[in-house]
Amino acid sequence: MALYVFKFGGTSVGSVERIKAVAEKVKKAHDRGDQIVVVVSAMSGETNRLIGLAKDIQQQPNARELDMLVSTGEQVTVALLAMALEDIGCPAFSFTGGQVRILTDSSHTKARIRSIDDHRMRAKLNQGKVVVVAGFQGVDEEDNITTLGRGGSDTTAVALAAALKADECLIYTDVDGVYTTDPRVEPKARRLDRITFEEMLEMASLGSKVLQIRSVEFAGKYNVALRVLSSFTEGNGTLITYEDTQMESALISGIAFNRDEAKLTITGVPDKPGVASKILGPIADLNIEVDMIVQNIAEDETTDFTFTVHRNDFERAKASLETTCAELGAKKVTADDNIVKVSIVGVGMRSHAGIASTMFQTLADEGINIKMISTSEIKISVVVDEKYLELAVRALHAAFKLDQAA
Amino acid sequence: MALYVFKFGGTSVGSVERIKAVAEKVKKAHDRGDQIVVVVSAMSGETNRLIGLAKDIQQQPNARELDMLVSTGEQVTVALLAMALEDIGCPAFSFTGGQVRILTDSSHTKARIRSIDDHRMRAKLNQGKVVVVAGFQGVDEEDNITTLGRGGSDTTAVALAAALKADECLIYTDVDGVYTTDPRVEPKARRLDRITFEEMLEMASLGSKVLQIRSVEFAGKYNVALRVLSSFTEGNGTLITYEDTQMESALISGIAFNRDEAKLTITGVPDKPGVASKILGPIADLNIEVDMIVQNIAEDETTDFTFTVHRNDFERAKASLETTCAELGAKKVTADDNIVKVSIVGVGMRSHAGIASTMFQTLADEGINIKMISTSEIKISVVVDEKYLELAVRALHAAFKLDQAA
Repeated sequence: MALYVFKFGGTSVGSVERIKAVAEKVKKAHDRGDQIVVVVSAMSGETNRLIGLAKDIQQQPNARELDMLVSTGEQVTVALLAMALEDIGCPAFSFTGGQVRILTDSSHTKARIRSIDDHRMRAKLNQGKVVVVAGFQGVDEEDNITTLGRGGSDTTAVALAAALKADECLIYTDVDGVYTTDPRVEPKARRLDRITFEEMLEMASLGSKVLQIRSVEFAGKYNVALRVLSSFTEGNGTLITYEDTQMESALISGIAFNRDEAKLTITGVPDKPGVASKILGPIADLNIEVDMIVQNIAEDETTDFTFTVHRNDFERAKASLETTCAELGAKKVTADDNIVKVSIVGVGMRSHAGIASTMFQTLADEGINIKMISTSEIKISVVVDEKYLELAVRALHAAFKLDQAA
Repeated sequence: MALYVFKFGGTSVGSVERIKAVAEKVKKAHDRGDQIVVVVSAMSGETNRLIGLAKDIQQQPNARELDMLVSTGEQVTVALLAMALEDIGCPAFSFTGGQVRILTDSSHTKARIRSIDDHRMRAKLNQGKVVVVAGFQGVDEEDNITTLGRGGSDTTAVALAAALKADECLIYTDVDGVYTTDPRVEPKARRLDRITFEEMLEMASLGSKVLQIRSVEFAGKYNVALRVLSSFTEGNGTLITYEDTQMESALISGIAFNRDEAKLTITGVPDKPGVASKILGPIADLNIEVDMIVQNIAEDETTDFTFTVHRNDFERAKASLETTCAELGAKKVTADDNIVKVSIVGVGMRSHAGIASTMFQTLADEGINIKMISTSEIKISVVVDEKYLELAVRALHAAFKLDQAA
């Protein structure tokens, strides 16, 4: 007998009919004799409806009250799913986050899980029931309802799987797995059977929004085998797990890209110790996150400093940098929000040389100018003109033979 | 500094605009320096929407899951009202029933309150905050969410007022108080400034649906001064309280009526000990509640036995009684669902003779035949043909001078 945690997102439980379909899927697994915990999100549209009501009342809704409000969305779904299961003869029992004591800190709307008490869930599982738990929510030590932030239901599922030492955590979603790249950009993109946590983290952080990044981190930390698969079609999806021998042959697992960034450069900065913090300090003070950072030393003992920020923060960051430029006596600021970041990701590059040069040569062959490079142990990212996005992705997909199974 | 519990029903919080209006009313009271606890229902229509969803999934929804589901309605309202209060500068803090530890038994959908912990509410009141509590809900000892049944928010308000030893519990509703009778039947009906708990209980049990009967019982038991008043207009409403000297002059406080009953008679029953239980036992076994019961001994040592049931149970009760009739060798069953019960209610009749004869004479003068009579210490009920309802109510209203202040 195995123990599985299933997670269904808002689209999968978006109507009475879909909730019934989820119940059938869960019953099938339960009938095989396995223990099943199901984590669900609010019905699609419900969270936005509730936030809309809140904003009609208070422009900046009180965070504690907002959590009190939106947490009702998942509570509705767990009750309805438990009824749907009971209705087809599958015994079920629902819980709010607070009832299974998903204890979090008190950071309303973006709380972090501290502990989970598996006692009540175990008792119901041992009675042969399917346990249905509201995703996205918990309680703090004072019993105030908290939420984990958007996409937090994935985190709930992984955290429950860790607490229950589940055999696998299955995230049912509207895609049927993790792809070598976005199929809307490269129709030859191929679904991966497996990917490592680290690769998945890089893919997620680079804009492949299959899973919430925190849930992947959590799964990696607690060694929870995570599977992404479709609610609507059959198939095994993609298993996210630790490296194993099967993977060694794959050099590159996928190509991620991110259209949300903008690039800022300050040139001719007198090169003294502490210059980086003088440039980035004011940006951090504005609560703007910086992604890539590159610094070059020029010949004349000045330095050029380039970094990227989210496009939403572009104008504020640019204004701040212009002030810094004047203060430091630097030459000038250049800014560009027509860029895109393209990355190749794969644990295979650790043990294989020449990956970077293949990447750069491929882009050069297509006449694509690289504006920025940044590397980590398992990824190489380049910034190019936005207009080259599709071309770059397809060229790299072909160069690394991602359309062929490893 | 006084402590008040306010309760607003679903119509009073039925839209964003109405929630804002409630917030203004609450703020005004808070600004006077009093401590305020507000109990709210779900926004009007919401509970029915949720029950509709449940029934689309399961014809007879699982009671525990139904409570999990519908309790979200009040949770939404408390969050929105707390936001509305904060938005106009009135500090507020919301609680679910479970969070203030409204502990109930485990009878889902009709739970009874066992205890309330006032500790968290007191702490917030002492911080100068308005405390907003979800009506209608609690938790059992296992932390399962329970609900108190329809209208349970009134009960929540009274129970909180008792636990907090509030100076008064104010029930804001869509009527502006308790009337001598239904103004739709007798336009001369007059709002009462005061009424006793016992009278209110009789009025409520006889079909005057201003307050849920349990909340009045609760208020009487714990001596909570209860006031019914309008959410939408100004005015002091009706205070429901213990008898006091002011009331002694009033003979009759009001005239209640009930259109929901039907009458069943079994005649020619051999009169032996235990015959009543032989007749009513099978009715009770069908879970049918019996209201009025009258038994007459006929001359021939048989008895006639008459009782009333809710019209919804009429056909089932009739079929059962016909079986009993054959078993007992009784003469026949007669049945009538075109009846109405009209009652006069008043603590004054305890100390005044002649009330009953005035009632019967008044009805006789109008040519209204009385089919059944039943009395208690503070009420006299008669069953008459349904077509005489309005006539009977108006004649009695005039005979007891209810259109004139006492």
